[in-house]
Amino acid sequence: MSLQVVIALFPQFTALDGIGPYEVLQRIPDIDVTFIAAERGIVRSENGMLGIEADGTFADFPTPDLVVFPGGHGTRALMTDEATLDWVRAVHPTTTFTTSVCTGSLVLAAAGLLDGLTATTHWSARDVLTQHGATPVPERVVEHLDRRIITAAGVSSGIDMALRLVELLVDRTAAEAAQLMIEYDPQPPFDMGALEKADDVTITRVIEYAQHRN
Amino acid sequence: MSLQVVIALFPQFTALDGIGPYEVLQRIPDIDVTFIAAERGIVRSENGMLGIEADGTFADFPTPDLVVFPGGHGTRALMTDEATLDWVRAVHPTTTFTTSVCTGSLVLAAAGLLDGLTATTHWSARDVLTQHGATPVPERVVEHLDRRIITAAGVSSGIDMALRLVELLVDRTAAEAAQLMIEYDPQPPFDMGALEKADDVTITRVIEYAQHRN
Repeated sequence: MSLQVVIALFPQFTALDGIGPYEVLQRIPDIDVTFIAAERGIVRSENGMLGIEADGTFADFPTPDLVVFPGGHGTRALMTDEATLDWVRAVHPTTTFTTSVCTGSLVLAAAGLLDGLTATTHWSARDVLTQHGATPVPERVVEHLDRRIITAAGVSSGIDMALRLVELLVDRTAAEAAQLMIEYDPQPPFDMGALEKADDVTITRVIEYAQHRN
Repeated sequence: MSLQVVIALFPQFTALDGIGPYEVLQRIPDIDVTFIAAERGIVRSENGMLGIEADGTFADFPTPDLVVFPGGHGTRALMTDEATLDWVRAVHPTTTFTTSVCTGSLVLAAAGLLDGLTATTHWSARDVLTQHGATPVPERVVEHLDRRIITAAGVSSGIDMALRLVELLVDRTAAEAAQLMIEYDPQPPFDMGALEKADDVTITRVIEYAQHRN
Protein backbone atom coordinates (compact mmCIF):
# COMPACT_ATOMS: atom_id res chain seq x y z
CA MET A 1 0.00 0.00 0.00
CA SER A 2 1.53 3.26 -1.03
CA LEU A 3 0.72 6.63 0.47
CA GLN A 4 -0.92 9.01 -2.00
CA VAL A 5 0.38 12.57 -1.93
CA VAL A 6 -1.25 15.25 -4.05
CA ILE A 7 0.34 18.62 -4.70
CA ALA A 8 -2.04 21.28 -5.98
CA LEU A 9 -1.27 23.37 -9.05
CA PHE A 10 -3.15 26.48 -10.18
CA PRO A 11 -2.35 29.45 -12.41
CA GLN A 12 0.38 31.63 -10.88
CA PHE A 13 1.67 29.09 -8.39
CA THR A 14 5.11 29.46 -6.81
CA ALA A 15 7.18 26.56 -8.05
CA LEU A 16 9.52 25.91 -5.14
CA ASP A 17 6.54 25.77 -2.74
CA GLY A 18 5.50 22.54 -4.39
CA ILE A 19 8.80 21.19 -5.71
CA GLY A 20 10.53 21.37 -2.31
CA PRO A 21 8.07 18.93 -0.69
CA TYR A 22 7.93 16.86 -3.90
CA GLU A 23 11.68 16.37 -3.92
CA VAL A 24 11.70 15.16 -0.31
CA LEU A 25 8.53 13.03 -0.38
CA GLN A 26 9.20 11.27 -3.69
CA ARG A 27 12.47 9.91 -2.27
CA ILE A 28 10.51 7.53 -0.05
CA PRO A 29 9.70 4.25 -1.83
CA ASP A 30 6.11 3.88 -0.60
CA ILE A 31 5.06 7.45 -1.28
CA ASP A 32 3.48 8.34 -4.63
CA VAL A 33 3.22 12.00 -5.58
CA THR A 34 0.78 13.40 -8.15
CA PHE A 35 0.50 17.02 -9.25
CA ILE A 36 -3.17 17.91 -9.66
CA ALA A 37 -5.15 20.93 -10.80
CA ALA A 38 -8.69 21.88 -11.78
CA GLU A 39 -7.96 20.36 -15.19
CA ARG A 40 -5.17 18.19 -16.56
CA GLY A 41 -2.48 19.85 -18.61
CA ILE A 42 0.21 22.47 -18.26
CA VAL A 43 -0.13 24.98 -15.44
CA ARG A 44 2.07 28.07 -15.47
CA SER A 45 3.97 29.58 -12.54
CA GLU A 46 3.65 33.17 -11.33
CA ASN A 47 5.66 34.76 -14.10
CA GLY A 48 4.78 32.18 -16.74
CA MET A 49 8.40 31.09 -17.21
CA LEU A 50 7.72 27.56 -15.96
CA GLY A 51 5.05 25.05 -16.92
CA ILE A 52 4.35 21.95 -14.84
CA GLU A 53 1.99 19.26 -16.01
CA ALA A 54 -1.04 18.45 -13.89
CA ASP A 55 -1.34 14.68 -14.22
CA GLY A 56 -4.69 14.54 -12.50
CA THR A 57 -7.57 16.69 -11.37
CA PHE A 58 -8.88 17.54 -7.93
CA ALA A 59 -11.91 15.42 -8.78
CA ASP A 60 -9.67 12.43 -9.51
CA PHE A 61 -8.48 12.42 -5.89
CA PRO A 62 -11.40 12.41 -3.46
CA THR A 63 -9.42 10.69 -0.68
CA PRO A 64 -5.70 11.58 -0.84
CA ASP A 65 -3.56 10.67 2.16
CA LEU A 66 -1.55 13.87 2.13
CA VAL A 67 -2.41 17.23 0.58
CA VAL A 68 0.26 19.87 -0.06
CA PHE A 69 -1.18 23.24 -1.06
CA PRO A 70 1.54 25.54 -2.43
CA GLY A 71 1.26 29.31 -2.55
CA GLY A 72 1.71 31.98 -5.16
CA HIS A 73 -0.16 35.01 -6.46
CA GLY A 74 -2.82 32.64 -7.74
CA THR A 75 -4.00 31.77 -4.24
CA ARG A 76 -5.86 35.09 -4.09
CA ALA A 77 -8.22 33.87 -6.81
CA LEU A 78 -8.58 30.44 -5.20
CA MET A 79 -9.74 31.97 -1.93
CA THR A 80 -13.10 32.70 -3.54
CA ASP A 81 -13.18 29.69 -5.84
CA GLU A 82 -15.87 27.51 -4.32
CA ALA A 83 -14.94 24.41 -6.32
CA THR A 84 -11.41 24.43 -4.89
CA LEU A 85 -12.58 25.29 -1.38
CA ASP A 86 -15.21 22.54 -1.51
CA TRP A 87 -12.54 20.02 -2.51
CA VAL A 88 -10.32 21.11 0.39
CA ARG A 89 -13.24 20.76 2.81
CA ALA A 90 -14.24 17.40 1.34
CA VAL A 91 -10.84 15.73 1.43
CA HIS A 92 -9.56 17.00 4.77
CA PRO A 93 -11.64 14.68 7.00
CA THR A 94 -9.88 11.61 5.57
CA THR A 95 -6.34 12.87 4.99
CA THR A 96 -3.48 11.83 7.21
CA PHE A 97 -2.26 15.42 6.96
CA THR A 98 -3.50 18.49 5.13
CA THR A 99 -0.62 20.91 4.63
CA SER A 100 0.33 24.15 2.97
CA VAL A 101 3.42 26.09 2.01
CA CYS A 102 3.59 29.89 1.76
CA THR A 103 0.28 31.51 0.83
CA GLY A 104 -1.23 28.07 0.33
CA SER A 105 -2.36 28.50 3.93
CA LEU A 106 -4.70 31.27 2.75
CA VAL A 107 -6.61 28.64 0.78
CA LEU A 108 -6.85 26.36 3.81
CA ALA A 109 -8.01 29.39 5.83
CA ALA A 110 -10.60 30.39 3.24
CA ALA A 111 -11.93 26.83 3.36
CA GLY A 112 -12.37 27.22 7.10
CA LEU A 113 -9.72 24.69 8.12
CA LEU A 114 -7.68 27.15 10.15
CA ASP A 115 -10.51 28.77 12.14
CA GLY A 116 -9.17 29.66 15.55
CA LEU A 117 -5.79 28.03 14.90
CA THR A 118 -2.29 29.42 14.80
CA ALA A 119 -0.76 29.08 11.34
CA THR A 120 2.06 30.40 9.22
CA THR A 121 2.34 31.78 5.69
CA HIS A 122 4.65 33.98 3.63
CA TRP A 123 5.67 36.93 5.82
CA SER A 124 3.97 39.36 3.43
CA ALA A 125 0.55 37.70 3.85
CA ARG A 126 0.16 37.42 7.60
CA ASP A 127 -2.63 40.00 7.71
CA VAL A 128 -4.65 38.02 5.17
CA LEU A 129 -4.50 34.99 7.44
CA THR A 130 -5.88 37.10 10.27
CA GLN A 131 -8.75 38.26 8.05
CA HIS A 132 -9.69 34.63 7.51
CA GLY A 133 -9.92 33.48 11.07
CA ALA A 134 -6.41 32.18 11.74
CA THR A 135 -3.73 33.56 14.04
CA PRO A 136 -0.48 34.06 12.10
CA VAL A 137 2.73 33.27 13.95
CA PRO A 138 6.24 34.00 12.64
CA GLU A 139 7.34 30.38 12.69
CA ARG A 140 8.73 28.26 9.89
CA VAL A 141 6.46 25.25 10.42
CA VAL A 142 3.30 25.22 12.56
CA GLU A 143 1.86 21.83 13.49
CA HIS A 144 -1.59 20.97 14.78
CA LEU A 145 -1.25 17.21 14.87
CA ASP A 146 -4.62 16.76 16.60
CA ARG A 147 -6.26 18.54 13.63
CA ARG A 148 -3.87 16.87 11.11
CA ILE A 149 -2.94 20.31 9.77
CA ILE A 150 0.57 21.62 9.17
CA THR A 151 1.39 24.98 7.60
CA ALA A 152 4.82 26.17 6.46
CA ALA A 153 6.08 29.72 5.93
CA GLY A 154 7.32 31.22 2.66
CA VAL A 155 8.49 29.24 -0.37
CA SER A 156 11.63 27.39 0.79
CA SER A 157 10.11 26.36 4.13
CA GLY A 158 8.28 23.50 2.44
CA ILE A 159 11.54 21.55 2.44
CA ASP A 160 11.77 21.72 6.22
CA MET A 161 8.09 20.80 6.54
CA ALA A 162 8.44 17.82 4.20
CA LEU A 163 11.32 16.36 6.21
CA ARG A 164 9.12 16.54 9.31
CA LEU A 165 6.26 14.92 7.36
CA VAL A 166 8.48 11.99 6.43
CA GLU A 167 9.38 11.57 10.09
CA LEU A 168 5.68 11.55 10.98
CA LEU A 169 4.66 9.26 8.11
CA VAL A 170 7.56 6.80 8.16
CA ASP A 171 10.27 7.34 10.76
CA ARG A 172 13.14 9.64 11.62
CA THR A 173 15.71 7.58 9.72
CA ALA A 174 13.64 7.91 6.56
CA ALA A 175 13.56 11.68 6.99
CA GLU A 176 17.29 11.82 7.61
CA ALA A 177 17.90 9.62 4.57
CA ALA A 178 15.83 12.03 2.46
CA GLN A 179 17.82 14.95 3.87
CA LEU A 180 21.09 13.24 2.94
CA MET A 181 19.83 12.31 -0.53
CA ILE A 182 18.95 15.92 -1.31
CA GLU A 183 22.15 17.05 0.44
CA TYR A 184 20.14 19.52 2.50
CA ASP A 185 22.94 21.07 4.50
CA PRO A 186 22.00 24.68 3.76
CA GLN A 187 24.71 27.31 3.68
CA PRO A 188 22.97 30.52 2.63
CA PRO A 189 25.60 33.11 1.70
CA PHE A 190 23.59 35.80 3.53
CA ASP A 191 21.33 35.90 6.60
CA MET A 192 18.36 37.81 5.26
CA GLY A 193 15.83 34.98 4.96
CA ALA A 194 13.22 36.14 7.47
CA LEU A 195 11.30 39.37 7.93
CA GLU A 196 12.63 39.59 11.48
CA LYS A 197 16.19 39.58 10.09
CA ALA A 198 15.65 41.96 7.18
CA ASP A 199 16.93 45.53 7.04
CA ASP A 200 15.19 48.47 5.36
CA VAL A 201 17.44 48.40 2.29
CA THR A 202 16.46 44.81 1.55
CA ILE A 203 12.75 45.37 2.18
CA THR A 204 12.80 48.41 -0.10
CA ARG A 205 14.35 46.28 -2.85
CA VAL A 206 11.74 43.56 -2.36
CA ILE A 207 8.96 46.12 -2.77
CA GLU A 208 10.66 47.54 -5.87
CA TYR A 209 10.95 44.08 -7.43
CA ALA A 210 7.35 43.18 -6.55
CA GLN A 211 6.10 46.34 -8.25
CA HIS A 212 8.21 45.59 -11.32
CA ARG A 213 6.64 42.16 -11.72
CA ASN A 214 3.07 43.35 -11.19
CA MET B 1 18.46 44.28 -21.84
CA SER B 2 17.50 41.24 -19.87
CA LEU B 3 19.85 38.47 -18.89
CA GLN B 4 18.97 35.14 -20.47
CA VAL B 5 19.15 32.14 -18.17
CA VAL B 6 18.63 28.64 -19.53
CA ILE B 7 18.00 25.64 -17.31
CA ALA B 8 18.55 22.28 -18.99
CA LEU B 9 15.97 19.51 -18.84
CA PHE B 10 16.50 15.89 -19.88
CA PRO B 11 14.80 12.59 -19.10
CA GLN B 12 15.29 11.62 -15.42
CA PHE B 13 16.33 15.04 -14.18
CA THR B 14 16.18 15.92 -10.49
CA ALA B 15 13.54 18.61 -10.12
CA LEU B 16 14.84 20.63 -7.19
CA ASP B 17 18.25 20.94 -8.87
CA GLY B 18 16.66 23.18 -11.47
CA ILE B 19 13.73 24.67 -9.58
CA GLY B 20 15.89 25.94 -6.71
CA PRO B 21 17.94 28.23 -8.99
CA TYR B 22 14.82 29.07 -11.04
CA GLU B 23 12.95 30.26 -7.97
CA VAL B 24 15.81 32.57 -6.95
CA LEU B 25 16.80 33.89 -10.39
CA GLN B 26 13.27 34.56 -11.68
CA ARG B 27 12.70 36.94 -8.75
CA ILE B 28 15.04 39.47 -10.37
CA PRO B 29 13.22 41.75 -12.82
CA ASP B 30 15.88 41.75 -15.55
CA ILE B 31 16.49 38.02 -15.56
CA ASP B 32 14.52 35.79 -17.92
CA VAL B 33 14.56 32.05 -17.34
CA THR B 34 13.77 29.42 -19.97
CA PHE B 35 13.69 25.67 -19.47
CA ILE B 36 15.24 23.97 -22.49
CA ALA B 37 15.79 20.41 -23.68
CA ALA B 38 16.79 18.50 -26.78
CA GLU B 39 13.20 18.94 -27.97
CA ARG B 40 10.27 21.06 -26.81
CA GLY B 41 7.59 19.39 -24.74
CA ILE B 42 7.17 17.64 -21.44
CA VAL B 43 10.26 16.16 -19.81
CA ARG B 44 9.84 13.75 -16.92
CA SER B 45 11.77 13.70 -13.65
CA GLU B 46 13.70 10.72 -12.30
CA ASN B 47 10.70 8.74 -11.12
CA GLY B 48 8.31 10.09 -13.74
CA MET B 49 5.99 11.67 -11.17
CA LEU B 50 6.68 15.21 -12.42
CA GLY B 51 6.59 16.67 -15.90
CA ILE B 52 8.08 20.07 -16.70
CA GLU B 53 7.62 21.69 -20.08
CA ALA B 54 10.70 22.52 -22.12
CA ASP B 55 9.78 25.85 -23.75
CA GLY B 56 12.80 25.85 -26.03
CA THR B 57 15.56 23.62 -27.36
CA PHE B 58 19.31 23.72 -26.87
CA ALA B 59 19.55 24.79 -30.50
CA ASP B 60 17.27 27.77 -29.82
CA PHE B 61 19.84 29.20 -27.40
CA PRO B 62 23.29 29.41 -28.98
CA THR B 63 24.41 32.31 -26.74
CA PRO B 64 22.72 32.19 -23.31
CA ASP B 65 24.12 34.43 -20.59
CA LEU B 66 23.81 31.86 -17.83
CA VAL B 67 23.56 28.09 -18.08
CA VAL B 68 22.29 25.99 -15.18
CA PHE B 69 22.78 22.26 -15.70
CA PRO B 70 20.80 20.24 -13.14
CA GLY B 71 21.61 16.66 -12.20
CA GLY B 72 19.69 13.44 -11.96
CA HIS B 73 20.03 9.84 -13.08
CA GLY B 74 19.69 11.07 -16.65
CA THR B 75 23.07 12.77 -16.59
CA ARG B 76 24.73 9.38 -17.04
CA ALA B 77 23.26 9.13 -20.54
CA LEU B 78 24.12 12.76 -21.35
CA MET B 79 27.78 12.17 -20.57
CA THR B 80 28.11 10.29 -23.84
CA ASP B 81 25.55 12.31 -25.79
CA GLU B 82 27.68 14.28 -28.22
CA ALA B 83 24.89 16.69 -29.22
CA THR B 84 24.48 17.83 -25.63
CA LEU B 85 28.23 17.95 -24.97
CA ASP B 86 28.78 19.91 -28.20
CA TRP B 87 26.17 22.47 -27.11
CA VAL B 88 27.85 22.86 -23.71
CA ARG B 89 31.22 23.37 -25.40
CA ALA B 90 29.74 25.79 -27.93
CA VAL B 91 27.90 28.04 -25.49
CA HIS B 92 30.45 28.21 -22.68
CA PRO B 93 32.87 30.67 -24.36
CA THR B 94 30.20 33.41 -24.40
CA THR B 95 28.30 32.75 -21.16
CA THR B 96 28.67 35.02 -18.18
CA PHE B 97 28.62 31.87 -16.05
CA THR B 98 28.24 28.18 -16.84
CA THR B 99 26.95 26.38 -13.77
CA SER B 100 25.74 23.03 -12.54
CA VAL B 101 23.87 21.55 -9.61
CA CYS B 102 24.34 18.01 -8.33
CA THR B 103 25.41 15.53 -11.01
CA GLY B 104 24.98 18.25 -13.62
CA SER B 105 28.70 18.79 -13.07
CA LEU B 106 29.32 15.37 -14.63
CA VAL B 107 27.99 16.76 -17.91
CA LEU B 108 30.25 19.81 -17.68
CA ALA B 109 33.14 17.45 -16.91
CA ALA B 110 32.32 15.15 -19.81
CA ALA B 111 32.32 18.21 -22.07
CA GLY B 112 35.82 18.98 -20.87
CA LEU B 113 34.97 22.18 -19.01
CA LEU B 114 36.25 20.97 -15.66
CA ASP B 115 39.62 19.56 -16.80
CA GLY B 116 42.11 20.13 -14.03
CA LEU B 117 39.65 22.09 -11.90
CA THR B 118 38.21 21.49 -8.48
CA ALA B 119 34.46 20.99 -8.61
CA THR B 120 31.58 19.65 -6.58
CA THR B 121 28.69 17.29 -7.26
CA HIS B 122 26.29 15.05 -5.36
CA TRP B 123 28.30 13.24 -2.67
CA SER B 124 27.52 9.87 -4.26
CA ALA B 125 29.14 10.85 -7.57
CA ARG B 126 32.49 12.27 -6.55
CA ASP B 127 34.40 9.34 -8.06
CA VAL B 128 32.75 9.94 -11.43
CA LEU B 129 34.03 13.51 -11.43
CA THR B 130 37.53 12.20 -10.82
CA GLN B 131 37.19 9.82 -13.76
CA HIS B 132 36.42 12.81 -15.98
CA GLY B 133 39.37 14.98 -15.17
CA ALA B 134 38.06 17.12 -12.32
CA THR B 135 39.06 17.12 -8.67
CA PRO B 136 35.98 16.69 -6.45
CA VAL B 137 35.94 18.67 -3.24
CA PRO B 138 33.33 18.28 -0.47
CA GLU B 139 32.12 21.86 -0.67
CA ARG B 140 28.62 23.18 -1.27
CA VAL B 141 29.53 25.68 -4.00
CA VAL B 142 32.84 25.77 -5.90
CA GLU B 143 33.62 28.90 -7.87
CA HIS B 144 36.17 29.44 -10.63
CA LEU B 145 35.33 33.01 -11.52
CA ASP B 146 38.29 33.30 -13.91
CA ARG B 147 36.86 30.36 -15.88
CA ARG B 148 33.24 31.55 -15.34
CA ILE B 149 32.34 28.13 -13.94
CA ILE B 150 30.46 27.44 -10.74
CA THR B 151 29.39 23.99 -9.54
CA ALA B 152 27.07 23.22 -6.65
CA ALA B 153 26.76 20.02 -4.61
CA GLY B 154 23.66 17.82 -4.34
CA VAL B 155 20.11 18.91 -5.14
CA SER B 156 19.27 21.62 -2.58
CA SER B 157 22.64 23.35 -2.92
CA GLY B 158 21.46 25.08 -6.09
CA ILE B 159 19.53 27.52 -3.92
CA ASP B 160 22.73 28.64 -2.20
CA MET B 161 24.52 28.86 -5.55
CA ALA B 162 21.75 30.91 -7.13
CA LEU B 163 21.85 33.49 -4.35
CA ARG B 164 25.57 33.89 -4.96
CA LEU B 165 24.91 34.18 -8.71
CA VAL B 166 22.47 37.04 -8.13
CA GLU B 167 25.12 38.79 -6.05
CA LEU B 168 27.60 38.36 -8.91
CA LEU B 169 25.16 39.34 -11.66
CA VAL B 170 23.34 42.22 -9.92
CA ASP B 171 24.44 43.10 -6.40
CA ARG B 172 24.30 41.84 -2.84
CA THR B 173 21.05 43.65 -2.05
CA ALA B 174 19.35 41.88 -4.97
CA ALA B 175 20.53 38.53 -3.63
CA GLU B 176 19.36 39.35 -0.13
CA ALA B 177 16.00 40.52 -1.51
CA ALA B 178 15.64 37.19 -3.32
CA GLN B 179 16.52 35.36 -0.11
CA LEU B 180 13.85 37.30 1.78
CA MET B 181 11.25 36.77 -0.96
CA ILE B 182 11.72 33.00 -0.85
CA GLU B 183 11.97 33.17 2.96
CA TYR B 184 15.18 31.16 2.84
CA ASP B 185 15.91 30.94 6.54
CA PRO B 186 16.45 27.19 6.61
CA GLN B 187 15.64 25.27 9.76
CA PRO B 188 16.21 21.61 8.89
CA PRO B 189 14.70 19.46 11.64
CA PHE B 190 17.76 17.16 11.50
CA ASP B 191 21.47 17.60 10.81
CA MET B 192 22.08 14.80 8.33
CA GLY B 193 22.44 16.80 5.11
CA ALA B 194 26.05 16.02 4.24
CA LEU B 195 28.00 12.80 3.82
CA GLU B 196 30.48 14.02 6.42
CA LYS B 197 27.62 14.30 8.94
CA ALA B 198 25.84 11.04 8.11
CA ASP B 199 25.83 7.97 10.32
CA ASP B 200 25.79 4.36 9.14
CA VAL B 201 22.08 3.87 9.86
CA THR B 202 21.17 6.74 7.54
CA ILE B 203 23.56 5.68 4.79
CA THR B 204 22.18 2.15 4.94
CA ARG B 205 18.67 3.53 4.50
CA VAL B 206 19.75 5.67 1.54
CA ILE B 207 21.21 2.60 -0.16
CA GLU B 208 18.03 0.62 0.57
CA TYR B 209 15.85 3.36 -0.93
CA ALA B 210 18.11 3.74 -3.97
CA GLN B 211 17.85 0.02 -4.68
CA HIS B 212 14.08 0.13 -4.30
CA ARG B 213 13.77 2.87 -6.93
CA ASN B 214 16.14 1.23 -9.42
